[in-house]
Amino acid sequence: MTSTPPAEPLRVAVIGTGLIGASVALAAARAGAVVSGWDPDPTHVERAAAQGALVPAGSVEDAVADADVVVVAAPIEAIPGAVVAALRGAARAVVTDAGSIKGPVVAEVQARAAHEGVPLDRYVPSHPMGGSERSGPDRASASVLDGIVWAVTPTPSSSDEAVASLDAFIRGVGAEPAHLTPERHDRLVAFVSHLPQVASTALMSLAVSEEAGEPDILLLAAGGFRDLTRLAASSPQLWGQILLANGEEVCRAIELYSDRLLRLRDDIRAGAVSEVEATFSHAKAARVRLAAKPQVRAGVAVLQVPIPDRPGSLAQLTGGLARGGVNIEDLQIVHSLEGGRGQVHLTVAAASVDAAVETLAADGFDPVRLA
Amino acid sequence: MTSTPPAEPLRVAVIGTGLIGASVALAAARAGAVVSGWDPDPTHVERAAAQGALVPAGSVEDAVADADVVVVAAPIEAIPGAVVAALRGAARAVVTDAGSIKGPVVAEVQARAAHEGVPLDRYVPSHPMGGSERSGPDRASASVLDGIVWAVTPTPSSSDEAVASLDAFIRGVGAEPAHLTPERHDRLVAFVSHLPQVASTALMSLAVSEEAGEPDILLLAAGGFRDLTRLAASSPQLWGQILLANGEEVCRAIELYSDRLLRLRDDIRAGAVSEVEATFSHAKAARVRLAAKPQVRAGVAVLQVPIPDRPGSLAQLTGGLARGGVNIEDLQIVHSLEGGRGQVHLTVAAASVDAAVETLAADGFDPVRLA
Repeated sequence: MTSTPPAEPLRVAVIGTGLIGASVALAAARAGAVVSGWDPDPTHVERAAAQGALVPAGSVEDAVADADVVVVAAPIEAIPGAVVAALRGAARAVVTDAGSIKGPVVAEVQARAAHEGVPLDRYVPSHPMGGSERSGPDRASASVLDGIVWAVTPTPSSSDEAVASLDAFIRGVGAEPAHLTPERHDRLVAFVSHLPQVASTALMSLAVSEEAGEPDILLLAAGGFRDLTRLAASSPQLWGQILLANGEEVCRAIELYSDRLLRLRDDIRAGAVSEVEATFSHAKAARVRLAAKPQVRAGVAVLQVPIPDRPGSLAQLTGGLARGGVNIEDLQIVHSLEGGRGQVHLTVAAASVDAAVETLAADGFDPVRLA
Repeated sequence: MTSTPPAEPLRVAVIGTGLIGASVALAAARAGAVVSGWDPDPTHVERAAAQGALVPAGSVEDAVADADVVVVAAPIEAIPGAVVAALRGAARAVVTDAGSIKGPVVAEVQARAAHEGVPLDRYVPSHPMGGSERSGPDRASASVLDGIVWAVTPTPSSSDEAVASLDAFIRGVGAEPAHLTPERHDRLVAFVSHLPQVASTALMSLAVSEEAGEPDILLLAAGGFRDLTRLAASSPQLWGQILLANGEEVCRAIELYSDRLLRLRDDIRAGAVSEVEATFSHAKAARVRLAAKPQVRAGVAVLQVPIPDRPGSLAQLTGGLARGGVNIEDLQIVHSLEGGRGQVHLTVAAASVDAAVETLAADGFDPVRLA
């Protein structure tokens, strides 16, 4: 006769505790998992441990020994060795890696595993499509994973059971699994991730080049330029590695992009206003469809509210709305440079916009509906 | 014997009351000016008037008759006629236009003014470097101008007195005047405004093209892609006009950009990792210097605070900080997609970060310092 054991918490091991690894650890811990972690840089593990994300382990083998799920969040060239070590060291865990490219990583894992006689049924490569231009465990947060798409790219060897376990883990940390082959992943990210990085870096470097030609040029750089060049602050080492590893797809994307830019140049030079407008209309329609996806929802309204820049003014604003039963969906502070006054952009459900305006006006605020 | 008359409010006329014109009117009214406005589309003037921005006028002549300052915020092809009409109709006003390009606009104003025998000493062309991908008077706000650079591009005919009056007006509405020639303005904005727009539109249109090749590609579009393509939602008509008007400079900028992209492609194809890293390092250093300018200030700290997504949770958070005497410099809500919980990124003065953490912890929040 056997008794049913009490439900055990999920055991997660994170190998490599930079921004992504430490964020995965924090999100797994938030979901109730027991997390162990290892990083070749002991200060990285300590900083992640100091955030309450994980228990430091002395080696990859120690970290993974009892794990149900192993996430290898290492630089690309360190992934294959860590994946194979994790598969050898963990008796039953599904092992994934979080590398930004998949085809070359999978090929290298397959070569190593074949050489060492390690089966790959428990290996399911993947790629959380989050992160930012920042790096390092101190910027980590469980919220890095909230609602992001996490690409899952099984190999022919990956077992259905291992894929299902990884999907469940991904949902557990607040992300959304999306299945595709490693090759298709690499082709798509060349356009939506690697090319944007290249475009941003090239624009920033051109603006401060001798050809653009002016030390004061950035004086005129407004919000649009800042948006386009935010990614240019990303890690040169990380990106050098990613772009070279996905070189063929990235080079193709750059060429198609350059072709498209030069076609626009031709239309501008020819004074072909209707062709230029058609290109812009096509892009605008696509961008509006994109904006309607996850990150911007229907059924909300945006109010702009001027507020004085002093302790208590936001509390007064949010307190009034709370008493009025209005849930604030989003709130962004738009400051003047000099301080002394500011603007808040407030997002509320469209159904409660009248209540919000009424409540704010009663409290002496002067809301204007923007959208 | 004369008596000193009481100080009169500044009289401002705005010709063209779209996003920029109505925002200028709102900012001038905020600064105590009396504002009249005219637009060929009567509903534009009415919508601006409904926001309390201005008093509608029946014609350009009526709007400008008593004005001290006239701002022509019209589409590029309508500017020269409106500027000359304003100079004829206003006995003493300094007249500026807010066109996104200056050289061709100035040339056309000069040609018309010469033909009609109108002197140009009171005409000072300019360009407020603000705005957004939105348009129309309903999106207008005085805050559109807060702290932005407003390029002032005098012609050889502009009098020193007129330039000084315009500078004072610009400071009065919360912006910062920056002087340069019309030609230099057009060369610089080709790189920091027009090229970013072209780069954004081309990237968006490529991502949804048959060459990139996948209807599901946008599933993988994360924050970086969204940043790079936000501008692609801008008005096709407005941009068609701007790009063609500044065609020579824009075509040169596109070519230099394409050259730079293809040099990066060559380095990637050659596996020249140190060249790729050098390009990225150069761009990163420039972007970090840019970030250190106005829009990001030193001496602040950022806290991340999980909050439940229900009415009152923000009020509790901000109320506690107000009682603790902590001024919130900025606050951004980072939501999970499913709702139910959220994260707030809270910016406070570095000097008050300990007080903020203490207050939040005492109220049951769990703040983590991000930066």
